[in-house]
Amino acid sequence: MSLNETLIEQKDALLAAHQADDRERLELLLPELRAADIAEILEQIAEEQDHQTVFGLLDRLPLDRRAHIIGYLPEDLQEELAREMSDESLLSVFEEMSADERADLFNLLDEDRREGLLRRMARQEREDLKRLASYEEGTAGSIMTSDYVAIPSGMTVSQAMMRVRQTAPDAETVYQLYVVDPEGKLAGTLSLRQLMVARPGAQVDDLMIKDVISVPVDEEQEEVARLVARYDMLAVPVTDHEERLIGIITHDDAMDVAEEEATEDMHKGMSIGKIEGGLRSASLFDLYRKRVVWLVLLVFANIFSGAGIAYFEETIEAYIALVFFLPLLVDSGGNAGSQAATLMVRGMATGDVRSRDWAKLLGREVAVAIGLGLTMALAVSVVGIFRAGTEIAMVVAMSMVLIVIVGSLIGMLLPFILNRIGWDPATASAPLVTSIADASGVLIYFAIATAVLGLPGG
Amino acid sequence: MSLNETLIEQKDALLAAHQADDRERLELLLPELRAADIAEILEQIAEEQDHQTVFGLLDRLPLDRRAHIIGYLPEDLQEELAREMSDESLLSVFEEMSADERADLFNLLDEDRREGLLRRMARQEREDLKRLASYEEGTAGSIMTSDYVAIPSGMTVSQAMMRVRQTAPDAETVYQLYVVDPEGKLAGTLSLRQLMVARPGAQVDDLMIKDVISVPVDEEQEEVARLVARYDMLAVPVTDHEERLIGIITHDDAMDVAEEEATEDMHKGMSIGKIEGGLRSASLFDLYRKRVVWLVLLVFANIFSGAGIAYFEETIEAYIALVFFLPLLVDSGGNAGSQAATLMVRGMATGDVRSRDWAKLLGREVAVAIGLGLTMALAVSVVGIFRAGTEIAMVVAMSMVLIVIVGSLIGMLLPFILNRIGWDPATASAPLVTSIADASGVLIYFAIATAVLGLPGG
Repeated sequence: MSLNETLIEQKDALLAAHQADDRERLELLLPELRAADIAEILEQIAEEQDHQTVFGLLDRLPLDRRAHIIGYLPEDLQEELAREMSDESLLSVFEEMSADERADLFNLLDEDRREGLLRRMARQEREDLKRLASYEEGTAGSIMTSDYVAIPSGMTVSQAMMRVRQTAPDAETVYQLYVVDPEGKLAGTLSLRQLMVARPGAQVDDLMIKDVISVPVDEEQEEVARLVARYDMLAVPVTDHEERLIGIITHDDAMDVAEEEATEDMHKGMSIGKIEGGLRSASLFDLYRKRVVWLVLLVFANIFSGAGIAYFEETIEAYIALVFFLPLLVDSGGNAGSQAATLMVRGMATGDVRSRDWAKLLGREVAVAIGLGLTMALAVSVVGIFRAGTEIAMVVAMSMVLIVIVGSLIGMLLPFILNRIGWDPATASAPLVTSIADASGVLIYFAIATAVLGLPGG
Repeated sequence: MSLNETLIEQKDALLAAHQADDRERLELLLPELRAADIAEILEQIAEEQDHQTVFGLLDRLPLDRRAHIIGYLPEDLQEELAREMSDESLLSVFEEMSADERADLFNLLDEDRREGLLRRMARQEREDLKRLASYEEGTAGSIMTSDYVAIPSGMTVSQAMMRVRQTAPDAETVYQLYVVDPEGKLAGTLSLRQLMVARPGAQVDDLMIKDVISVPVDEEQEEVARLVARYDMLAVPVTDHEERLIGIITHDDAMDVAEEEATEDMHKGMSIGKIEGGLRSASLFDLYRKRVVWLVLLVFANIFSGAGIAYFEETIEAYIALVFFLPLLVDSGGNAGSQAATLMVRGMATGDVRSRDWAKLLGREVAVAIGLGLTMALAVSVVGIFRAGTEIAMVVAMSMVLIVIVGSLIGMLLPFILNRIGWDPATASAPLVTSIADASGVLIYFAIATAVLGLPGG
């Protein structure tokens, strides 16, 4: 929390110095701040003040820092900033940005502007930008960078070392090197550490690891993050369909993807669609839209619960006390089911659970659910006896056991079923599981009640 | 998915060769496999076959690979393996393991064994192991390693380069270097890349960045992961209370922590306690225990909903059709509230939302919730008119608007309130929010019904 307070202080100091046009003070303050922190301060200023102040502050920074910080800003700010800038300044910012961030900024511009900018670039730069900007969002291509160190096959260690030194200022990482054959195909990889301890005259081809882990350019970014985490990689190379090396994805970008995907999965677990940008910057309509779809669908799904209740209307009229326990029972089934679904969905996302494990996990879930059901039946019968007498308490306790077991099994199996039919298992959200568990809970409860208590006059 | 199939094939091939004692084939198969993959294959074999096969296969590997793979195995397997091994073999495995993994394995042993092993170690090794093993789980100390490259202050670039080459075989990373003063305090940091492009005679102290991001040894591991992600770090240095450098945490370990914490938060969002190890390896009793606590607590919390219903018993008896809509209405409030809670809890975990943002976010949530409530009221009134006539449909629609707004606000505010009183905001789980939203939903619904429809004979 001290960091946040520090940031607030730094923001206030920056603003004061900027507004007083106190250049000396700004020259003391600005170099002290890290890019991620300045970006956060600017985002905050954009929320509290106006965007012009943000752009004014950015103008006070040297070009390379400015370019670096722009990469950290939220998309809407980047977009507006680019609109304010002349083609000249935008092109000079482009030059200082890393290839992947340049492509992301480029994709925020409208088509006319993009065309105009491309025309003013050197051929190689233009081709590189066009290519990086062309990959579909969510794929390996969309997060890779072309700033990597490629070593032509056939070099000696000392030649390769020279190449590393030459490329060092521009490359995103110089610590993992990629050996390519004359056709541009990825032939192997070696680390700078290996290179450093090797004999200068040794052949790179003899040192390199030939069995390289790489990803195709259209691989899902989620899968890329999983690979980087699994094999503790510094970067993963990306290849095109002819297995030519075309980019790398570094560990920090993989970590950002993993965080983004975890957030998306958590939201999905509550039937919330994918929200672009942060919670604070998302538009109200977007927040509404991403939440309302499933909520309304589930209103209709809940008709089944209502129909179940209608079917047992006579029982309910005869034993009105049954209604007291209705929310409690259906909630319990929904809760146990949501727990089971969450365990499965997250297990599948991290690779801890695979679809072929379902039968084994089903057996385990049955055992756990019986335990849960019995414990909760005990708890509810204490409540039941005090509120409604032994007979109804017995009905409620029996229902609880069954409802919890059925709810748990629905929650556990639904992700596997969805996966089997080609859907995202995360669609088995808590609200969906709850609605299905509710309908079954209503049927179980009133069926048991009708059987045990008998129909009025029956 | 192809990876999994490949792994299954490799597992079958390994098992066949092992059982036939076909050494030639094993010598072809084993070097091809990566440590993370062998570990996963062994875990699978442990589940399907017996542990002896696993240990037998491990014995066929050279010591350094064996040590590396053991670090990837789940704790229960590591524990059993260590029990099977003699002190001699365990000590030689220890020597080949990285410092952090050695400490983790050491912590799985019982006290007598630990004492015995420590007595047989050299003093420096012993002190290092004892220190690393002593940090509380979940802190920076528990995940750091002591295998880093420290450069004494005052060295030249070429001296530092020599030091890097000497340390290279043992250090976890040689790409980020830490400069320490004579008292062992962290004076600065520089990257190998900086060192490589610098003049050999230059002073390291002139090159290094003095404003180092570091973490105290008792910092929460979650915070460490957040820092590494925020500043795109390769490793973060860890200091003791005298600001002496005592370890580093590398990006791959930070990424593992981030994944682990995201899993924990998702589970917490469904009121599931922290499960040690994977879902498949957790004991049934542990799974039961981690789920039952809140489920039972919520049974008692649901008494409030029951009490609300009891209070309005006369209204319900008079208009039994009201019961049809009860699960639908309380579910809707719970769903909207769970969505709001999840958005806030995850936002707080990633740093997108801060506690001081609550007022601004409250305003936004009110606006979104009104939109959600009106849309869902429209949906439910379509259902209502067909099932129960216009009068009840009107009651249901009015209730829906209010219930969704109240549910959303409960879900949104609860994480902030919990945070304020020093609890983990993630305690505002979907089941808890649902239970609270349920009780308010019951009151809102039947109060509106009583007001609009009137009491029987009233």
